[in-house]
Amino acid sequence: MNKLVGKQSVRFENPPYIIGAASVAGEKEGNGAFGNYYDLVEKDPLFGQNTWEEAESKMQQLAAEKAMEKAGKTPEEIRYIVAGDLLGQLIATSFGIMKFNIPMFGVYGACSTMGESLGIGSMLLDGGFADCVMAMTSSHFASAEKQFRFPLAYGNQRPFCSTWTVTGSGAVVLASKEHVNMDKKEPRIQVTGVTTGTITDYGIKDSMNMGACMAPAAASCIVANLQDFGVKPDYYDKIITGDLGSVGQRILKDITKEYGYDIGKKYMDCGTEIYYNEAQDTNAGGSGCGCSAITLCGYILHKIRKGDWKRVLFVPTGALLSTVSFNEGHSVPGIAHGIILELEQKEMGEWHM
Amino acid sequence: MNKLVGKQSVRFENPPYIIGAASVAGEKEGNGAFGNYYDLVEKDPLFGQNTWEEAESKMQQLAAEKAMEKAGKTPEEIRYIVAGDLLGQLIATSFGIMKFNIPMFGVYGACSTMGESLGIGSMLLDGGFADCVMAMTSSHFASAEKQFRFPLAYGNQRPFCSTWTVTGSGAVVLASKEHVNMDKKEPRIQVTGVTTGTITDYGIKDSMNMGACMAPAAASCIVANLQDFGVKPDYYDKIITGDLGSVGQRILKDITKEYGYDIGKKYMDCGTEIYYNEAQDTNAGGSGCGCSAITLCGYILHKIRKGDWKRVLFVPTGALLSTVSFNEGHSVPGIAHGIILELEQKEMGEWHM
Repeated sequence: MNKLVGKQSVRFENPPYIIGAASVAGEKEGNGAFGNYYDLVEKDPLFGQNTWEEAESKMQQLAAEKAMEKAGKTPEEIRYIVAGDLLGQLIATSFGIMKFNIPMFGVYGACSTMGESLGIGSMLLDGGFADCVMAMTSSHFASAEKQFRFPLAYGNQRPFCSTWTVTGSGAVVLASKEHVNMDKKEPRIQVTGVTTGTITDYGIKDSMNMGACMAPAAASCIVANLQDFGVKPDYYDKIITGDLGSVGQRILKDITKEYGYDIGKKYMDCGTEIYYNEAQDTNAGGSGCGCSAITLCGYILHKIRKGDWKRVLFVPTGALLSTVSFNEGHSVPGIAHGIILELEQKEMGEWHM
Repeated sequence: MNKLVGKQSVRFENPPYIIGAASVAGEKEGNGAFGNYYDLVEKDPLFGQNTWEEAESKMQQLAAEKAMEKAGKTPEEIRYIVAGDLLGQLIATSFGIMKFNIPMFGVYGACSTMGESLGIGSMLLDGGFADCVMAMTSSHFASAEKQFRFPLAYGNQRPFCSTWTVTGSGAVVLASKEHVNMDKKEPRIQVTGVTTGTITDYGIKDSMNMGACMAPAAASCIVANLQDFGVKPDYYDKIITGDLGSVGQRILKDITKEYGYDIGKKYMDCGTEIYYNEAQDTNAGGSGCGCSAITLCGYILHKIRKGDWKRVLFVPTGALLSTVSFNEGHSVPGIAHGIILELEQKEMGEWHM
């Protein structure tokens, strides 16, 4: 079987199964639209730690532990962890997962990291290089503001097109078929394909409008997926981007339309929906690696397991923002990775809820 | 065939071939011990650009172009690029490779990045997810000093245990057997196995002694490799770490000895050898992602092609240093990834040089 599909996609011969997923979120996220779906909502923004970075590390640790618990796996049984975050040199990840002593691939795709880690993790599994892999990411409002924006105490004004970095971490444990308990009568979700994104730059230099920076990359990835597989948007029950927000998602719909694809009816954006934007004062919506990660591990996987959606194209979106390149006058390029999630088809009928 | 070997290694069923490799280096590196082996030595430290970050991006672009030229491949023929660098949000990579429009996995493993990118790239190839992959990284003395140390103009003193960040970029084009011209009578190098490292932290907090920070991770990876494959150090013609420098390499030898492995006779460290340390005032040696990358693409691959070494364990070493975590009182953990490089065995005899 040829696993290569079109220009930039792959289809799995033995699609990996999601055998455990966990989401850890902050209080604001807990009060948001998907608050009931998270495994843990923590009221202390410092997660009992001393610094914002330590807090984010703690979130990753908690998410990883919960995901392994739900998967019934110990750290020794996880062959690789593929993970990253927004902070310079991925410190939230390094210090968060160190104690598990799992062979590690650090990845950076800005807020597309959940897509990148799921993509690489799935390929390692289907390629026969692992029986069990964890894919994970996180973001924290305060560590991201410190890294990319202003000191919190400065109380800067936020334009309406700006988004609010989600405090949250999502972890997914993937396994090959041999390591899934097939006797268990439960709906199972597989990663059946991946479309790997390219860096896409429309020259946008407004770092407060990350949605606009990422929309071209999201469009490029979604169009590539549809072209590679030769399908129309309605092939999917849902096409879900990571964190374009209310501004970026409009740009995305316009660009995909120019390519002849009307994704409107099938489309959802985690960033636009994760908060009650008006009531929670989050302007254009949520963003950050954690945005798509906790929406996936909480809401999206729930909807697929329930059978409401049977095939989803999950497209975490990243803006490759750096204060250094930005202050040197460069644009903010974007990247997005598409992950095809499918409800296992066979023998499912009677025990679907 | 079971590709999993021991706890953290894999062996390839169809070992990917290195079909092109290129190194771009700065003037100081050109004057160093391996100066004759680089494809390009540039005297202008800015590489014709306006900022150090742009200079580093330019190096990546030049290395990628040269590697593709040597491999006889166009960007359209490269299925993935797996690349990263030391800078926050990997800007050297993002802006360096953007124009190639190749599907991209951004990776961060500090100075172990050449190992991480070769590891992931090789698995994607042997797993059937690509026919051609580029693995790449870079570092630049000035952009690294700016990111991690002091302004250049400050002229800070450097302790004897400190290392000098290499200005250089190395790019490797890997391909599956079907995409290698087997009629060509030339020595060919394959990636036959990978040992993926874990984050290893002995609690060292001296950010000026990166060798000591990384040595435990290097030891952990090398010992894991030897244990997983059930071999002794003399299984390899050479065991080559990335950038431990003169201090770190002594620690490495001590630790591996405690595990019952005397690697001394087979051992080499790119960082210790890349400069004439006394004459070039580089103290403990070279470091940075570029250190192992250009030594690989220049000197090491040359030695293997020549037949001087037939089997090499290449172990780029990374110190996960961040100014943020460091200033918050944390240690500098390390990670290292082991790549097994072998000269293709069959039909080689007569046309070996």
